[in-house]
Amino acid sequence: MTKQGWNRLALGRRKFLGLSAGMAAAATFPARAAQSAAAPDDPSPQIEPFWGAHQAGILTPAQKHAVFAAFDLTTDKRGKVAGLLRRWTIAGSHLSLGRPVDVPGDGEYEAASDPADVATLSPSRLTVTVGFGASLFTRDGRDRYGLGAQRPEALVDLPDFAGDRLEPARTGGDVIVQVCADDPQVAFHAIRQLTGIAHGVAAIRWMQNGFVSDFGAGQSPRNLMGFKDGSGNPHRDDPQEMDRVAWVGEEGPAWMRGGTYQVIRRVRMALEKWDRTKLAEQEATFGRRKYSGAPFGQADEFDPIDLSARDPNGDPVVPKNAHIRIAHQAALDGARVLRRSYSYSDGANVTTEPWPPFRQAMEFDAGLIFVCFQRDPRNGFIKIYDRLSRSDRLGEFAVHTGGGMFACPPGAARGEYIGQRLLEAGA
Amino acid sequence: MTKQGWNRLALGRRKFLGLSAGMAAAATFPARAAQSAAAPDDPSPQIEPFWGAHQAGILTPAQKHAVFAAFDLTTDKRGKVAGLLRRWTIAGSHLSLGRPVDVPGDGEYEAASDPADVATLSPSRLTVTVGFGASLFTRDGRDRYGLGAQRPEALVDLPDFAGDRLEPARTGGDVIVQVCADDPQVAFHAIRQLTGIAHGVAAIRWMQNGFVSDFGAGQSPRNLMGFKDGSGNPHRDDPQEMDRVAWVGEEGPAWMRGGTYQVIRRVRMALEKWDRTKLAEQEATFGRRKYSGAPFGQADEFDPIDLSARDPNGDPVVPKNAHIRIAHQAALDGARVLRRSYSYSDGANVTTEPWPPFRQAMEFDAGLIFVCFQRDPRNGFIKIYDRLSRSDRLGEFAVHTGGGMFACPPGAARGEYIGQRLLEAGA
Repeated sequence: MTKQGWNRLALGRRKFLGLSAGMAAAATFPARAAQSAAAPDDPSPQIEPFWGAHQAGILTPAQKHAVFAAFDLTTDKRGKVAGLLRRWTIAGSHLSLGRPVDVPGDGEYEAASDPADVATLSPSRLTVTVGFGASLFTRDGRDRYGLGAQRPEALVDLPDFAGDRLEPARTGGDVIVQVCADDPQVAFHAIRQLTGIAHGVAAIRWMQNGFVSDFGAGQSPRNLMGFKDGSGNPHRDDPQEMDRVAWVGEEGPAWMRGGTYQVIRRVRMALEKWDRTKLAEQEATFGRRKYSGAPFGQADEFDPIDLSARDPNGDPVVPKNAHIRIAHQAALDGARVLRRSYSYSDGANVTTEPWPPFRQAMEFDAGLIFVCFQRDPRNGFIKIYDRLSRSDRLGEFAVHTGGGMFACPPGAARGEYIGQRLLEAGA
Repeated sequence: MTKQGWNRLALGRRKFLGLSAGMAAAATFPARAAQSAAAPDDPSPQIEPFWGAHQAGILTPAQKHAVFAAFDLTTDKRGKVAGLLRRWTIAGSHLSLGRPVDVPGDGEYEAASDPADVATLSPSRLTVTVGFGASLFTRDGRDRYGLGAQRPEALVDLPDFAGDRLEPARTGGDVIVQVCADDPQVAFHAIRQLTGIAHGVAAIRWMQNGFVSDFGAGQSPRNLMGFKDGSGNPHRDDPQEMDRVAWVGEEGPAWMRGGTYQVIRRVRMALEKWDRTKLAEQEATFGRRKYSGAPFGQADEFDPIDLSARDPNGDPVVPKNAHIRIAHQAALDGARVLRRSYSYSDGANVTTEPWPPFRQAMEFDAGLIFVCFQRDPRNGFIKIYDRLSRSDRLGEFAVHTGGGMFACPPGAARGEYIGQRLLEAGA
């Protein structure tokens, strides 16, 4: 669609809302408009850049809230998918600036992209990150959009890991949209608007909220088990390291270069059992001290892990089934990921013991939305978690109940849309 | 239990955790400990006072996050209930200061009240508010704890309102615990610890998260429909007005004087339908302007509502079925409540049209956790909502799916526990 076409439709929508053109962005939202109008593209603590070589929300320091929405495509037309990605790209760039979405839907659905629910709130460092599931390329053996040949080798089907309890209604999806923001109302606004302009083309398959507290600059956040999360993360401010760990290079299809693969796992923690486990046992499960985060045998969180160290009895200082031993062995084999996880709390529900007397209890449905990015999941999450799922003692306290793997294309330059090189490949 | 008894048990717990006494509060939590140790009882922006004539979390300016947990009592012993309330009171006072809970459970359940998951986080203005449901007094016609005669007249069974779709698993409860804090991890920590020390005495019946953004000092927050929420609220900084609206006086049983009645309603909003409704229709539904919050016929949010005003055609300026007309008529009859609501977003789920062709769609499970406090619900929520549920046009866009009504006793002085005057009444 031409730029004029967009503007005309946008004007139509405004009139439909009973607003004169420009009102929505100016008169009715003074604080948000003032902030972005003064310096629309300046980096500011409240605005994360949208356009660039890589998508936002990957290296971005974690915002306090996240919403993950997996969509299934309900169209069989590639052009409709391309149109959706174009709309989402424009909408994402507006939302990042704290502006109204101001993007019409597919024409059939006259939803109001009305930003009143976030009027006067700051942009809250919002980011929108989009990725493609394997089912976008082929589903039930069918090449849905003529994109089957573009499916990256690295976008394998995730294997069934030991102990997996993935619920179909929380798993997979043709497209993932990750929205992060420091304000939960701003994050929900974005997902709601992006869902509205997807109507007729894509529908939500599952949606998951997450949160992470600000433990201070340079501090690893703590998960709901009370341990620091992400201590062994690579340095996201080191471009060479990110090229090695996160960004797809020449080995990938052209449309994925500068992109990355995202793995999301909804990890329910057995918090009631965990809270009845002694501190020494908890620490032996991780192989780290709970308060300092130091690996066993060391003093500080970021001290090197020494897997060969033995205590005076000749036993390994880091227990054989400790989480960090198994993860670190995979790292020594070259498997690396960039973690960017959130905690979740979805209330409480009934659990029943699977053996007589089948005791029932209310337990928290809470834990970790494990999120990681990597250049190749076969040498990243899959290699690491294949080992962890079989031996990690943490498996006694955590069960994976959903998630998926998605190919996140590179970022877009102004005038492009996210995924454009894929959607136009071989067309 | 004596103070020495508490201390001994607390020491036992610390040893159980493998910590020497004092370590948990001092060495391992420098930031939190420093903050509270410097001036443990000084009012500070991060600490809301716990002890006082009224419970915290009622007049307290809304924190950004809330967790509501309704508990069912699993004991038949009044002493066990009293013990739980004493533990919750001490724990609540510690949590408000950002300190470890440091309260042992009932003896049978050795959960670690370990604050590592919030180590170094600020107290985040945490409040804990406790209330009693009608079922605490009588259930299935049985006086469970010899407290039946203490049930306040005002704590009626909520009537079945028109349009109610209350799900039993989201409704009622013997005791409600409302935790509010500016940080979601701090709020979850509190509910988890309070649940842990309730083991064997009370179990969660339902649990609900909520959030509200900070729209600036003196500004009404906006709900997910984009309208300002709470515009007509009484002034919580006016003690006389709060005596009239919120606090139980001589008319109540002795144990409730200085307390209040809390009504919670989980209101699912039909956001997809709402977003397809024109702005003029949305505004006519409320009887207010969306952006300014002004009542129809007025210029500003806080301008008086004029129900008698007519337009040049002789039609009422505020439509007959507008939300504010019906609510305001109840207010003119003297019905007042203090609202303190949160928004919620619990993901998306399948909805099915109740008529052929039974179309299905994923819709947001999101809306409002309506919360209000009042001196007498018969002259508060019940009077107002009885009218609203029958005529309010907002009913086309909102359905009540859960909640409850609870008698929140007055606050406790140091050495007392919340609800003590009830639990010791007639004992």
